[in-house]
Amino acid sequence: MKKVMYEEFGNPVDVLKVVEVDAAALADGQARVDVLRAPINPSDLIQISGNYGVRPPLPATAGNEGIGRVTEVNGSGMVVGQLVLLPAGVGTWVTEVIADIRHLIPMPEGDVDQLCMMMVNPATAQLLMTEFVELKEGDWMIQSAANSAVGTYIVQLAKARGINVVNVVRRDTAVADMKAIGADVVIVDSPDLAKDVHKATGAKMKLAVDAVAGDTAGRLADTLERGATLVNYGGMSNQPSALGAAALIFNDIVVRGFWLVLWFEKASKEERMGVYASLTASVAKGELHAPIDKVFTLDQIGEAAKYSWAGERKGKVLLAPNGI
Amino acid sequence: MKKVMYEEFGNPVDVLKVVEVDAAALADGQARVDVLRAPINPSDLIQISGNYGVRPPLPATAGNEGIGRVTEVNGSGMVVGQLVLLPAGVGTWVTEVIADIRHLIPMPEGDVDQLCMMMVNPATAQLLMTEFVELKEGDWMIQSAANSAVGTYIVQLAKARGINVVNVVRRDTAVADMKAIGADVVIVDSPDLAKDVHKATGAKMKLAVDAVAGDTAGRLADTLERGATLVNYGGMSNQPSALGAAALIFNDIVVRGFWLVLWFEKASKEERMGVYASLTASVAKGELHAPIDKVFTLDQIGEAAKYSWAGERKGKVLLAPNGI
Repeated sequence: MKKVMYEEFGNPVDVLKVVEVDAAALADGQARVDVLRAPINPSDLIQISGNYGVRPPLPATAGNEGIGRVTEVNGSGMVVGQLVLLPAGVGTWVTEVIADIRHLIPMPEGDVDQLCMMMVNPATAQLLMTEFVELKEGDWMIQSAANSAVGTYIVQLAKARGINVVNVVRRDTAVADMKAIGADVVIVDSPDLAKDVHKATGAKMKLAVDAVAGDTAGRLADTLERGATLVNYGGMSNQPSALGAAALIFNDIVVRGFWLVLWFEKASKEERMGVYASLTASVAKGELHAPIDKVFTLDQIGEAAKYSWAGERKGKVLLAPNGI
Repeated sequence: MKKVMYEEFGNPVDVLKVVEVDAAALADGQARVDVLRAPINPSDLIQISGNYGVRPPLPATAGNEGIGRVTEVNGSGMVVGQLVLLPAGVGTWVTEVIADIRHLIPMPEGDVDQLCMMMVNPATAQLLMTEFVELKEGDWMIQSAANSAVGTYIVQLAKARGINVVNVVRRDTAVADMKAIGADVVIVDSPDLAKDVHKATGAKMKLAVDAVAGDTAGRLADTLERGATLVNYGGMSNQPSALGAAALIFNDIVVRGFWLVLWFEKASKEERMGVYASLTASVAKGELHAPIDKVFTLDQIGEAAKYSWAGERKGKVLLAPNGI
């Protein structure tokens, strides 16, 4: 079997290596899974560069999510041929995974390009919209980085629930793409953001979700109604969130952070299954869809990592460890 | 009667005028109160300059809190000679106030220099410590602007409750003053704040209260334990609070604001009376005490405002409208 590993933290293009190792035998209660698709998430590359919140012990196998098909079973509760979501943290940029049967999430047959990305971004999108503020049909929310993977899932989930979204992007060229996926209100970030939002909607926002931080965080905060919540889930600007006293003190807003890893630690098994069951159904029905830019093989990992770092992608980059 | 008024927003030294007007007659249910002491709070001066969260209609009478003695009563529930706390927003930099009897808070006889400041700062100090996080004996909290009026009340309230406080100040010269009022841990703010706090205490903070904002807010945030709360109640640095993604996302902290005006709007009459009853008792017993720098008469208002703006005061500046 082949896997993508790194022995030191650094630029993914430099430190990632494809190595060939012998396949291990299954222990009791385990299954072997051929990995069909695994996404390259920005957070994967940040983790490999050593700049993530937690650092894995080295050497490490790369990749944090993916989908595969069971090829061998040593235990009950799983059958050969079943499509499964791989457990988080297993190292998914590999041709095959050995995992405990109870950690595999059985999935209905469907579009593996879409289903392989279930674990992180769609769950993040859904939880950002449900864990902090109760949004009802007709309510308004605002998000930065609206053309990110999480952002496009939020557009789709909000549409299905009748929630209005102001989508903030950083460049003019992203506006048409957002409109194409069904976004109604798209605004290019600027110091006039709060004015532009008021002009476009006449409404105050009940929730802001932000993956940019820096000045954008403060601008989003200024669009909120009294007592509303701003949730930060990323720091693309590499700047601290700059929040004015007027928003915090006089407008009583609440600022929180969201990290899926912590949510997993706190959530019950029922809560986790509930989130993934509802998302799986939506993806299978085609209600949730993320644009795919390009699919690479495992041997092309250097090229794939380089391509993923570049800013002007038009969708997700995937790995197909067992062939495209 | 005399009162301090302003007809336009601007530098308090320029816009404040002492005017003489005829005393009005009492309506049913009202009392007349000779004002004995009224503090000059930084927030009063900011309000007069036009930079506060809300602007009063002009012309306006200055001053937001004070204590006085009832000289005339037209109704029941109040007696001549009673010491009373003046209601918020009544305009207290005056020789006499006419107010509804039900809005006056009767006080036990005591040190009027101390009691005149009850309404704003001691209440803010107490609520910052009780409204956001449940602090138990032995828990740690941290505060910036520790040598401010609110800061020194927090030191005293925390000592009475057995709560440990890290006191952050902006200049070396403030350390000795803090030690003199009983502060155990005093640290001068710097980019090493989190390290210095760890060195001094070995503890993670459960609550941070911040009146400085800017980089100080982010440094306070980095001293917090996972899931802890940072409350901003002032912006002395005139910079937005700069909060890092690591604190918000990976350490799951909550950032809130506190404004006493909003608390008054939301609190029940019982909650308000509970807070002031406990504070009044503490002040009367001498458990709560704020240093007084200087007392001015109403006619000295220009000089008093100028003196209050200066940074190196050693305590509160008060007005004595009916003589020192």
